[in-house]
Amino acid sequence: MPGVQVENGKVFLQRTEPERRRLVHALNRIEGQVRGVRAMIEADRYCGDELQQIKAAISGLSRVARLLTEQHVNAATTALLDGAGRDVVDADLSRILKTILAI
Amino acid sequence: MPGVQVENGKVFLQRTEPERRRLVHALNRIEGQVRGVRAMIEADRYCGDELQQIKAAISGLSRVARLLTEQHVNAATTALLDGAGRDVVDADLSRILKTILAI
Amino acid sequence: MPGVQVENGKVFLQRTEPERRRLVHALNRIEGQVRGVRAMIEADRYCGDELQQIKAAISGLSRVARLLTEQHVNAATTALLDGAGRDVVDADLSRILKTILAI
Amino acid sequence: MPGVQVENGKVFLQRTEPERRRLVHALNRIEGQVRGVRAMIEADRYCGDELQQIKAAISGLSRVARLLTEQHVNAATTALLDGAGRDVVDADLSRILKTILAI
Repeated sequence: MPGVQVENGKVFLQRTEPERRRLVHALNRIEGQVRGVRAMIEADRYCGDELQQIKAAISGLSRVARLLTEQHVNAATTALLDGAGRDVVDADLSRILKTILAI
Repeated sequence: MPGVQVENGKVFLQRTEPERRRLVHALNRIEGQVRGVRAMIEADRYCGDELQQIKAAISGLSRVARLLTEQHVNAATTALLDGAGRDVVDADLSRILKTILAI
Repeated sequence: MPGVQVENGKVFLQRTEPERRRLVHALNRIEGQVRGVRAMIEADRYCGDELQQIKAAISGLSRVARLLTEQHVNAATTALLDGAGRDVVDADLSRILKTILAI
Repeated sequence: MPGVQVENGKVFLQRTEPERRRLVHALNRIEGQVRGVRAMIEADRYCGDELQQIKAAISGLSRVARLLTEQHVNAATTALLDGAGRDVVDADLSRILKTILAI
């Protein structure tokens, strides 16, 4: 169970090493896809293929965002059971929800 | 006016140097944002801030996709006026549209 | 505070009368927008205007989805403090999150 | 082939009867789904099920938007071959593209 702290009305979680590795690995892959888009544009490749590669990068980023949000919601319920105020946790969850839904 | 070619039922356009530079510049920025997300995750930053950075990278990629699509639609009408078959151009535009709308 | 119940691993909330009225009002408006799109199509109106009206209806539906999700997350933290099992609440939140993020 | 006209810099198309019927049919279905969401909310159904129904309505609207856009792009290439100015058609397509991509 990752460590959870509340500071300035925000829930912070300390990820476990495997959780962090998985996210970093996903971001390395996305970075490669972004570089791939740039190389395709420099070579004037077919627009449909460039768009497919952009789509792959966006899907990857959305997956990471979903994962971060799930971990965070988990941390927030931990914080609540650890005695963090209900108002704090509700406000925090509402803020995170607004952010992810605006993506 | 960029050059336009039709090959295997696909419209290809050769971008002008300023068009290419603008796109490459945007992708360099997006690559930096993706690295930023990774650094934030490695430092266990606040989830809401990580999500904001992911949102910035996704917005950047969407903007590039829109730009590529607009340039492509322009190239397709050029191809049409240059004598490329109507069926070819319609099929090409329909394919590009499907791809961008699936992003 | 609306009533909250847990049944078959799902958190149910009983909305207050003002909450329900607000949602029903929003849905009546969306229904009118959908009918508006149909009338525009029957009259062969400009495609850009038809798309704008579709956009308005989709935005309305997304807003309702966000509102439902916020109310639900609130209900889930209430359930947790009322003694509902942590596993139940985490699984429920994770399911709701998956659903809203797939929209 | 549907009729195409250009007025005030906008491409208008007159849909064929089967095209119109298909769109109207889809919108009737979407209207039913929106009413379904309202009924679920009035009955305080499970939030996840309400969200699923909202998702179905949004998917339906997106499909209609895609269909309208495809028909419009087709009409625009017809207009171009019929002698409508290239600037007019490019501006029209660019406007439609911006609208659909903002949905």
